[in-house]
Amino acid sequence: MEKIAVYPGSFDPITNGHLDIIRRSARIFDKLYVSVLTNSAKVSSFSVGERMEMIKEVTKEFDNVEVDSFSGLLVNYVKQKEASVVVRGLRAISDFEYEFQMALMNHKLEEDIETLFMMTSGKYSFLSSSVVKELASHGGNLSDLVPDCLTEKIVNKLRRK
Amino acid sequence: MEKIAVYPGSFDPITNGHLDIIRRSARIFDKLYVSVLTNSAKVSSFSVGERMEMIKEVTKEFDNVEVDSFSGLLVNYVKQKEASVVVRGLRAISDFEYEFQMALMNHKLEEDIETLFMMTSGKYSFLSSSVVKELASHGGNLSDLVPDCLTEKIVNKLRRK
Amino acid sequence: MEKIAVYPGSFDPITNGHLDIIRRSARIFDKLYVSVLTNSAKVSSFSVGERMEMIKEVTKEFDNVEVDSFSGLLVNYVKQKEASVVVRGLRAISDFEYEFQMALMNHKLEEDIETLFMMTSGKYSFLSSSVVKELASHGGNLSDLVPDCLTEKIVNKLRRK
Amino acid sequence: MEKIAVYPGSFDPITNGHLDIIRRSARIFDKLYVSVLTNSAKVSSFSVGERMEMIKEVTKEFDNVEVDSFSGLLVNYVKQKEASVVVRGLRAISDFEYEFQMALMNHKLEEDIETLFMMTSGKYSFLSSSVVKELASHGGNLSDLVPDCLTEKIVNKLRRK
Amino acid sequence: MEKIAVYPGSFDPITNGHLDIIRRSARIFDKLYVSVLTNSAKVSSFSVGERMEMIKEVTKEFDNVEVDSFSGLLVNYVKQKEASVVVRGLRAISDFEYEFQMALMNHKLEEDIETLFMMTSGKYSFLSSSVVKELASHGGNLSDLVPDCLTEKIVNKLRRK
Amino acid sequence: MEKIAVYPGSFDPITNGHLDIIRRSARIFDKLYVSVLTNSAKVSSFSVGERMEMIKEVTKEFDNVEVDSFSGLLVNYVKQKEASVVVRGLRAISDFEYEFQMALMNHKLEEDIETLFMMTSGKYSFLSSSVVKELASHGGNLSDLVPDCLTEKIVNKLRRK
Repeated sequence: MEKIAVYPGSFDPITNGHLDIIRRSARIFDKLYVSVLTNSAKVSSFSVGERMEMIKEVTKEFDNVEVDSFSGLLVNYVKQKEASVVVRGLRAISDFEYEFQMALMNHKLEEDIETLFMMTSGKYSFLSSSVVKELASHGGNLSDLVPDCLTEKIVNKLRRK
Repeated sequence: MEKIAVYPGSFDPITNGHLDIIRRSARIFDKLYVSVLTNSAKVSSFSVGERMEMIKEVTKEFDNVEVDSFSGLLVNYVKQKEASVVVRGLRAISDFEYEFQMALMNHKLEEDIETLFMMTSGKYSFLSSSVVKELASHGGNLSDLVPDCLTEKIVNKLRRK
Repeated sequence: MEKIAVYPGSFDPITNGHLDIIRRSARIFDKLYVSVLTNSAKVSSFSVGERMEMIKEVTKEFDNVEVDSFSGLLVNYVKQKEASVVVRGLRAISDFEYEFQMALMNHKLEEDIETLFMMTSGKYSFLSSSVVKELASHGGNLSDLVPDCLTEKIVNKLRRK
Repeated sequence: MEKIAVYPGSFDPITNGHLDIIRRSARIFDKLYVSVLTNSAKVSSFSVGERMEMIKEVTKEFDNVEVDSFSGLLVNYVKQKEASVVVRGLRAISDFEYEFQMALMNHKLEEDIETLFMMTSGKYSFLSSSVVKELASHGGNLSDLVPDCLTEKIVNKLRRK
Repeated sequence: MEKIAVYPGSFDPITNGHLDIIRRSARIFDKLYVSVLTNSAKVSSFSVGERMEMIKEVTKEFDNVEVDSFSGLLVNYVKQKEASVVVRGLRAISDFEYEFQMALMNHKLEEDIETLFMMTSGKYSFLSSSVVKELASHGGNLSDLVPDCLTEKIVNKLRRK
Repeated sequence: MEKIAVYPGSFDPITNGHLDIIRRSARIFDKLYVSVLTNSAKVSSFSVGERMEMIKEVTKEFDNVEVDSFSGLLVNYVKQKEASVVVRGLRAISDFEYEFQMALMNHKLEEDIETLFMMTSGKYSFLSSSVVKELASHGGNLSDLVPDCLTEKIVNKLRRK
């Protein structure tokens, strides 16, 4: 039976930490949806279109990865995609607590959907989209933090004029 | 490609929390090894044989689960089984820290082996083999904590005479 | 001497997790005030009146529970009610840190007022008012999360039109 | 109805942190048992008799405190004393995790017994019986850490010859 | 070689906890900059000028402390001051996680700049600028929380009219 | 005034994580003692002499580092060396809690001695002497974990025959 997984997130923008999780997940599951959460309540720096574009650019080498977006409850989206697994990266304790509550809630809503966690590589343990945006807005160096091909696009968008 | 996973542990003895992880993992992977770690340095209450016997008894309904044992480095064992995934259950922060370090170390030793974590169900968040042994030794009630068919075996072994 | 306790919170809206703490506290103390914090700085989904109404509806079976509201410093309110104990539920580490700081500060302000903590039942460890609101706004199922008699009221208020 | 509470522990030896919890608990409950756990598996520095003697000496001013000892399951002991509450002090996250699991387990074993937690005063957050023993064995200063009247007794027992 | 350190923060307003870190750091380093972060995105209660004024007033006894302000990336500011050390106080786990990520990021950006952490004294473990502001706005007692000479200034600014 | 620091530990054996802390500390302080704790209660794999020898071998390039050993209370040793700072590395939350308690206790014993913490580099966050010993005993690869010049010595000592 084909194993389909969803890796949901804001990806605002995608970082090397996200890409690391994508690469590792794509080896485990037959198909992986990288799905941008369209959450109208949260202000984002990049539009959903821009975010999907950037993810597509850096995941085009993976045959079994598809970039998508969704709104509403995650479990409904996962079912609609006929997926059985949600993938999440963990960097630290604070991630853990929030993710723990989400995973338990989602398990209660849909017992057939499992959330599987991967530890982020040690070298990315400090890395988040917020850190990237903070650095970019002050002209900091983004190398090693985001894929090289995206650096210019991110800096142009975020550098304070 | 067949996805093979290993769920390693002491299982001294197996609890309903372990069984919950096994049931959920068996749905995700094509084959799941439940593998008793033979660690000569740690004193166990049940022999490796007894532990494997108990796991076999409560997992016989799962066609793709095989009970095994191993010693030495986990990553060597996983490779030998041609597995690519290690499954671990997380109950709490203290688990998290230790598991985090183990997962990072194993990833360093063998980049192709991934450790995937599942959150233990809320109702089992207090449950461990130690708790079971403590209760059994004082004549406490083990129902809901271990599979019913194992209760008598565990109590007979552990009750203080 | 009569023991009076205060269980303060936002209760926006009350969940089964809150109700569990109320039921357990009402058995320990002679009188329990369930007190809605009127915090003008925080945007709430339900008015103070609506929140008190819902709590009253689900606690009417407890003779020694009184629903109230307050603003200003908690310790001043507790003294005014001639209470000596503040009750708080703990779900997780992140709760713990914040509650720890509040309890130490309140103890410094009024040494005679004690904060006592209860662990939330494992089955409610993922549950919060925010989770309820998130689910309700997307049409998710609230059964087991809030008292049945409140479900319709909460869904009507929060479902996105 | 009289409210009876149990404050269980090793008290090997009692510290000012323990005494702080006792003083605060004695104000809340009608009767408080301070109960030394007789755990044959754990090596203690002071005998059960010595530990009870020291607790009696420093709690004699509290009319509603009784010093006792017990073995076996805590919940059985609490029921036998007709108590409904277990009191525990929390210093830090690591306490929290262990205590969380114990409280959930005890709640499962006896739903009528509640565990209530108090935060240890900030000034005692580093204090434990182990710290006291470590200091005493190297001739460190115990003032502020244990009641003055016990210092000599503790030092004589623990100082390395 | 002269050792120069920077203690950055919002100091909105300075508390006795901050002052404790300043006093202890001033003994270790040859020169200490206490540097108010000018972060346009975060709403502050006191202007940068007011915050610097208050810090100056309570640190005038320390010869090697200089009060300053900065914007942009911390590492750039530290280099410009020819400092090699950033000092941060830790109160609790939640501090730890955030500080951990910042320290790793700053170390990546400038390998020659070290972040050194001090534990806040136990008696200040609940203390933060937010707690001070919350208390002041409700007429709570600020003694022991902020330097006495600043109490009136802070209360006048923050008390709700 | 010359700033002298002590970096105490078991170093059983020294790892690249320890060496990272030593290198970074040696840049900040005028003199750094790397001091092996002689704790008779704890069983070690390498003798104190072997441990000091290994540290000397890998720190000989640092002019201001001196390798030493001590027993008894850390604060007494630090005073005897006329040092004012204790350096400790932090990898994770579990380190943090223990270190927090030790730092507060030491500060209480000697107010003039400060404990300063450094975050271990992300790439060493999983690394400890225990991990090294576990790997070595099973023939695992130690490269990147300990200095190359020590690998053979460590493997010869620890490999199970």
